[in-house]
Amino acid sequence: MLNSQLSTSRKPLYETVAERINFLIDQGTLRPGDRVPSIRKLSHQMQVSVNTVKEAYGQLEDRQIIEARPQSGFYVRPQLLEIPSDPVFNPPELLNPTDVNLNQIYHRVMRDHLNPQLLKLGISVPDCSLLPVDKLNRMLARETRRYPNQAVSYQLPPGNLRLRQQIARRMLLSGCTLSPDQIVITSGCVEAVDLSLRTLCRPGDTVAIETPFYFNFLQLIDDLGLKALEIPTSPRGGISLEALDYALSHNGDKVKACVVISNFNNPVGSSLSTVDKKRLVEILSHYQVPLIEDDIFGDLAYSGERPKVAKAFDRNDNVLLCSSFSKTLAPGYRVGWVVAGRYQDDIERRKMLTGVATASPPQLAIAEFLANGGYEHHLRSIRKRYAHQMAQMQGAIGRFFPAGTRASRPQGGFNLWVEMTSGVDAMQLYKDARKHNIGIAPGPIFSLERKYQNFIRLNAARWDKDIESAIATLGQLAAAQLV
Amino acid sequence: MLNSQLSTSRKPLYETVAERINFLIDQGTLRPGDRVPSIRKLSHQMQVSVNTVKEAYGQLEDRQIIEARPQSGFYVRPQLLEIPSDPVFNPPELLNPTDVNLNQIYHRVMRDHLNPQLLKLGISVPDCSLLPVDKLNRMLARETRRYPNQAVSYQLPPGNLRLRQQIARRMLLSGCTLSPDQIVITSGCVEAVDLSLRTLCRPGDTVAIETPFYFNFLQLIDDLGLKALEIPTSPRGGISLEALDYALSHNGDKVKACVVISNFNNPVGSSLSTVDKKRLVEILSHYQVPLIEDDIFGDLAYSGERPKVAKAFDRNDNVLLCSSFSKTLAPGYRVGWVVAGRYQDDIERRKMLTGVATASPPQLAIAEFLANGGYEHHLRSIRKRYAHQMAQMQGAIGRFFPAGTRASRPQGGFNLWVEMTSGVDAMQLYKDARKHNIGIAPGPIFSLERKYQNFIRLNAARWDKDIESAIATLGQLAAAQLV
Repeated sequence: MLNSQLSTSRKPLYETVAERINFLIDQGTLRPGDRVPSIRKLSHQMQVSVNTVKEAYGQLEDRQIIEARPQSGFYVRPQLLEIPSDPVFNPPELLNPTDVNLNQIYHRVMRDHLNPQLLKLGISVPDCSLLPVDKLNRMLARETRRYPNQAVSYQLPPGNLRLRQQIARRMLLSGCTLSPDQIVITSGCVEAVDLSLRTLCRPGDTVAIETPFYFNFLQLIDDLGLKALEIPTSPRGGISLEALDYALSHNGDKVKACVVISNFNNPVGSSLSTVDKKRLVEILSHYQVPLIEDDIFGDLAYSGERPKVAKAFDRNDNVLLCSSFSKTLAPGYRVGWVVAGRYQDDIERRKMLTGVATASPPQLAIAEFLANGGYEHHLRSIRKRYAHQMAQMQGAIGRFFPAGTRASRPQGGFNLWVEMTSGVDAMQLYKDARKHNIGIAPGPIFSLERKYQNFIRLNAARWDKDIESAIATLGQLAAAQLV
Repeated sequence: MLNSQLSTSRKPLYETVAERINFLIDQGTLRPGDRVPSIRKLSHQMQVSVNTVKEAYGQLEDRQIIEARPQSGFYVRPQLLEIPSDPVFNPPELLNPTDVNLNQIYHRVMRDHLNPQLLKLGISVPDCSLLPVDKLNRMLARETRRYPNQAVSYQLPPGNLRLRQQIARRMLLSGCTLSPDQIVITSGCVEAVDLSLRTLCRPGDTVAIETPFYFNFLQLIDDLGLKALEIPTSPRGGISLEALDYALSHNGDKVKACVVISNFNNPVGSSLSTVDKKRLVEILSHYQVPLIEDDIFGDLAYSGERPKVAKAFDRNDNVLLCSSFSKTLAPGYRVGWVVAGRYQDDIERRKMLTGVATASPPQLAIAEFLANGGYEHHLRSIRKRYAHQMAQMQGAIGRFFPAGTRASRPQGGFNLWVEMTSGVDAMQLYKDARKHNIGIAPGPIFSLERKYQNFIRLNAARWDKDIESAIATLGQLAAAQLV
């Protein structure tokens, strides 16, 4: 049959091959994340030369329909998320910052974490299978044996020196030349952001943030008595700099800080380009609004190339950079840090006031892991896995969710932002999913005003048959709402 | 010579023996903390019967001049601190709560902790030699090997179940019957208090506290935008309930919480009696002011009898009990807890917002230590040591400091509060001491208005020749100010 089609075609042969693959994709035979036939196999099937297939796949790759993965072949690219790429923003709303609504949903979603029955697709944590569990725990045992007194004593702010040296060394990859003394160790990235907000803002102040935005930070902003000013985030390029500039020019004096997840943000998974990071720093510097930059996913770029941070362009000491090892090594170790520049003393003092110090044994263990644990090797391996799993999950969304469902295209991390058609209510889906012991993060908790009613965030940190069948169940539950 | 004195006396023989010992003390031959001659030895020396010496020592004990220590003999009791035992308070001042003065001194004292040259008598931490360092670190290694995934994963609030079970079991000794579900694990006691204050108060609110009071809490109260209402603490009985009642009756509506260290408080070392704990709870309940009770030193009673907590008398769910293992097991492990009653949900949510969870490996290790590590045995041993060291330090103060210097008489813990004569300036002493590489905590940082100009807090958690000679140096420096 293929042969008969081929023989009647007047187009170049490679184009016919490309169209054939395209047809299989449009038709749904090949889904996003699926592997397309190997060059050799298709050449044999269609009785064309290997070079013709190569040419065809090159065309499809240029058109972003398929993508090559080293040593693995070609795959159908995930669908693009097509929420408006030039974000719409509403000036009057920007001029009236909204109180975060401390709602019940958040508390319920948080409580889900404790439910052992639940398949936790709603929480943005790495799966233990992709963490160097045994190696890290062995280093914990060894380092506490090596430095017994250090392990039980306070590592007072700024924290363990060796750990800070290792972090400073790694920060070169993100474009920052720092001394260990410019780093304060914290109990994870969340504490780093909490300390930064407490340092920069007083109750009643306004904080500029991305929307949609990591729900924990929204709740934190509310808890500190602050108001949030939502700036749209594009699914490809991160926070809209135009909207930010506009908002600050009308609102600048009330805004005391801006919080941005610059690489592979949460929940969308998009990043600011290097150029835009530089512009972001310039804009905020112009309005004298300090930037709290969260780079927690920065080590997880699928490309393997460590993206720069906005802090790298910080000429005016206006950026507080926060991060942690919670996504790459061990969330339960609670080791993060902040580079606070001129606020360093304040942050150290506040760290001491609010919890004295970060737990010592995990600091010793992670310092040793960074020095001798093969952290880069570990990153190389999990980056590939996350890229693969993300594609699998995107593919499964395509296969199992109602037509019209869209998914974001993260280039790193493991958060997937899914837009369902407007007929699907994410809160209802959340409730239905729980009955099937599946936890998801419903869109409304990512905004101040329960926007994103038809969005959910999923966690692609694990991929197996159980997850696949959970995605299928979610797809069915979503479809059931449309009947 | 003794014999000739004895022969001319008309008093009962035992009284003459008692007077002789008293004379040696008054004269300074026997100093506070010194061991007095054994019964057998004195009987031999003074050629009186063993029973006569026993009678004499009984008299001296009744008059609180000497004290018996089990299996160890009799010792000269430390001098009583005689700051006015009925605290003076000033109603107009109470009606105008003061902003905490975020002064430079605090920051400098904190920075001292990081100076490796300094002999740290100014920081209230246990010495590693009295911590079960190796056992604890071994348990850390073993438990993380036993539960590898738990060790690297979040132990989300309320925290590790086994640890909460162990704490609930121990709380029976303090008079509280609790289920593990009523306990939230925190990163030390300071975080527990921070979370409690954030839960109960909004900026501008007033918090009733003891004075003098742990400087970290004063700074924390300021940092949260709260005002502090200082209630005098007596050197024997803890916070003055009369003053508290008076202050609340005039000020009650502005006071949103009361923070009290109920056992062996910081810096004085005094405790509320059981009766007064009950009254404290009743008074605060009457004014509907929640109590944040800090019991961090409660396990360190020299008598060996675990004192009750105020929470034990909490009939109206009005007490938040905070504590930790930082004084008994490992400050660097950062494991504390809060029993928050009706505020439990709020505290759990806030814990999640501000740092997600407490580090996991230390939770696993301490749970195991409480279950199988001989915690009670450990406490028995360190209580004796601290009692002994405290007496040694008190004795050294008596020996080396200018006449008129007074020291508090803690019955537990390791904080010693020293009142020098009014001619000695604690800040000057602090500066002079640093030149000799001795760190002390100057009195003014324990109050809002730099009261306690001639007080210092010392740490009796260690006792050796170095400490003794540091106390001698401090005494000389104090004396030099009086010249």
